[in-house]
Amino acid sequence: MIDLYTWKTPNGRKVPIALEELGLEYRVHPVDIGADAQFAPGFLAISPNNKIPAIVDDDGPGGEVAIFESGAILTYLAEKTGALLPGAGAARYVALQWLHWQIGGLGPMLGQLGFFAVRSKEKAPLAVDRFTDEANRLLDVLERRLADSRYLGGDDYGIADIAAYPWMQAAGTMLAEALSAPFERRPATARWLEEVGARPAVRKGMRVLED
Amino acid sequence: MIDLYTWKTPNGRKVPIALEELGLEYRVHPVDIGADAQFAPGFLAISPNNKIPAIVDDDGPGGEVAIFESGAILTYLAEKTGALLPGAGAARYVALQWLHWQIGGLGPMLGQLGFFAVRSKEKAPLAVDRFTDEANRLLDVLERRLADSRYLGGDDYGIADIAAYPWMQAAGTMLAEALSAPFERRPATARWLEEVGARPAVRKGMRVLED
Ligand SMILES: N[C@@H](CCC(=O)N[C@@H](CS)C(=O)NCC(=O)O)C(=O)O
Ligand SMILES: N[C@@H](CCC(=O)N[C@@H](CS)C(=O)NCC(=O)O)C(=O)O
Repeated sequence: MIDLYTWKTPNGRKVPIALEELGLEYRVHPVDIGADAQFAPGFLAISPNNKIPAIVDDDGPGGEVAIFESGAILTYLAEKTGALLPGAGAARYVALQWLHWQIGGLGPMLGQLGFFAVRSKEKAPLAVDRFTDEANRLLDVLERRLADSRYLGGDDYGIADIAAYPWMQAAGTMLAEALSAPFERRPATARWLEEVGARPAVRKGMRVLED
Repeated sequence: MIDLYTWKTPNGRKVPIALEELGLEYRVHPVDIGADAQFAPGFLAISPNNKIPAIVDDDGPGGEVAIFESGAILTYLAEKTGALLPGAGAARYVALQWLHWQIGGLGPMLGQLGFFAVRSKEKAPLAVDRFTDEANRLLDVLERRLADSRYLGGDDYGIADIAAYPWMQAAGTMLAEALSAPFERRPATARWLEEVGARPAVRKGMRVLED
């Protein structure tokens, strides 16, 4: 059984999507980051970086294993099951490069845009402009990729799509105004969003802790 | 032979360190990001996100392979050689979680701190404060990890250390003023920096394109 510690945020939705896709049994533990639950000692023992998501798998390699960082968790789940990420070959590294692009670029930059353009009451135009430009640049990179390739990793759906989807969903909702209707002028991304968003596991994972 | 496209920046130094550690043959191609060389069509064909580092390995799985994103490249090189990352077991995912922590947290947040606190002429105090606080929080997370563990991944040196080292070196130099002498109050990190920094491969990789 996998214990999933998460919350209703883009990073928090990636892991339930993967668990649903893989048909793994899991139990959800809410970590309300709006109420600072990520600083509780019990959670810090699992996730010393005080961020969600994190998992504990009692059926890990050699016994119980705790993992934080969504990119590491997605890789773990894919390697545990042999699905959603090629085990070898060039396609494996194409998928991993887009996974890292989400973890190191798309996620943090849309996250900062959300803070400076949407959540913060005090406004810093230098920061709003910087993160708006960087977010639009990243969305253009994604659009070119998805104009060439059905999924981020290539012909097959996998963990890079799962990592990017909840952030792109946020780009079209919470961040839509800051990004001025981002998908009207990005048709390949709109096609991918619709296709990925229609998957039953994605629908279910996106609603973690909502139902 | 591996073609390495890089520049004299923290992300640009990770891959030459790994190549030196692994004793792989490589050729360095400078991509001067100060002169916008990352937007040249030839480079974009390899690295569509217009960032360094990127590699092309003519001896990849099934032929030539091009990879961007430092975390994906480090994983590729480790799996190609069977070194610097356990192939299985819990220790593999501990190392991958700290690798992703560098890619998604330490790197982007120190990068933004460098922009807002050091490089930008216009000042946005909201952003300077935000990234100073986040950088200090991340440095505290690292300090606690390194007080418990010799290396980021555990007992063995590996790609998580290689990813973090150039950024921590920048924290102690370019960012030292913004972070108010970060290592005086973080002894475990100071110990790790000295130990990792003394490795011949690290010394050599840190000087990529300098000699
Ligand atoms: N790189 C991390 C980012 C995780 C992250 O930023 N989580 C946010 C919610 S989306 C969080 O827990 N924030 C609480 C805090 O920073 O205190 C990952 O991909 O897992
Ligand atoms: N997540 C990426 C970050 C790479 C990155 O930010 N590279 C910077 C230099 S340190 C760059 O190429 N900047 C040029 C640009 O953004 O145009 C990685 O780890 O490879």
